Amino acid sequence: MIDLENMRSQCPIANALEILGDRWTLLIIRDLMFTNRREFGHFLKSGEGISTNILTDRLDKLQCFGIISKQPHPKHGKKFIYDLTELGLKLAPTIIEFTLWSLDTVENTFVPPKILEMMRNDRKKLISLINKKECLVEVDL
Amino acid sequence: MIDLENMRSQCPIANALEILGDRWTLLIIRDLMFTNRREFGHFLKSGEGISTNILTDRLDKLQCFGIISKQPHPKHGKKFIYDLTELGLKLAPTIIEFTLWSLDTVENTFVPPKILEMMRNDRKKLISLINKKECLVEVDL
Repeated sequence: MIDLENMRSQCPIANALEILGDRWTLLIIRDLMFTNRREFGHFLKSGEGISTNILTDRLDKLQCFGIISKQPHPKHGKKFIYDLTELGLKLAPTIIEFTLWSLDTVENTFVPPKILEMMRNDRKKLISLINKKECLVEVDL
Repeated sequence: MIDLENMRSQCPIANALEILGDRWTLLIIRDLMFTNRREFGHFLKSGEGISTNILTDRLDKLQCFGIISKQPHPKHGKKFIYDLTELGLKLAPTIIEFTLWSLDTVENTFVPPKILEMMRNDRKKLISLINKKECLVEVDL
């Protein structure tokens, strides 16, 4: 369990927002959940234009809260590999609902059909694939 | 459908975060979804300490995106009443999943037992009550 210092309220939404309530944090979690991005440089090139200092800050925070893990890269001594922990993987249902809302709401949003099909009709299978850390969207790194 | 200008990507998560990706926005939606808070002054006193200028900005944005509506107050000429639109009400499943994650994750978070029971075991009923705009948590205004 995460123990937030200086809690302003007992509201679960307010407290979850203390942890996740900025756009960059959820984009890192998205990358780890659905794509093969695992390294600092991969997140930097993610497309939305995160800056190095914000990325460093958000990765540190997520690791500190126990939502992601950080391991030395097996091949490159100076690099690290990030991944979602069990706590981070448990965000899958939230991310799925958020995605479906956006697809229904914002024009020109897109999800690969294979994933959309599971989001709509076989969420159990999608969450099981996410938990097995099977890369769902292979992107150029 | 919302038409975002200057979209940075087609990713539904990135685009939803353009609209909802700061903590204050989701707290306003929480208040409208679960409590009897409907006026500017009610949100101000919500407990998390939003400032007047941030509140004004976020209410304008949410109205602009069509997520909340703003009507003249039937009794007080200078006041307005805010409410969730259909687009805003559709955020219920996301908010519910987010709340459940937080309850499992962050210490000392609390949801009234009546609501928690529906979140866990009868989501259909909870969403139906939200759609009927039945106030679920009566707070002092």
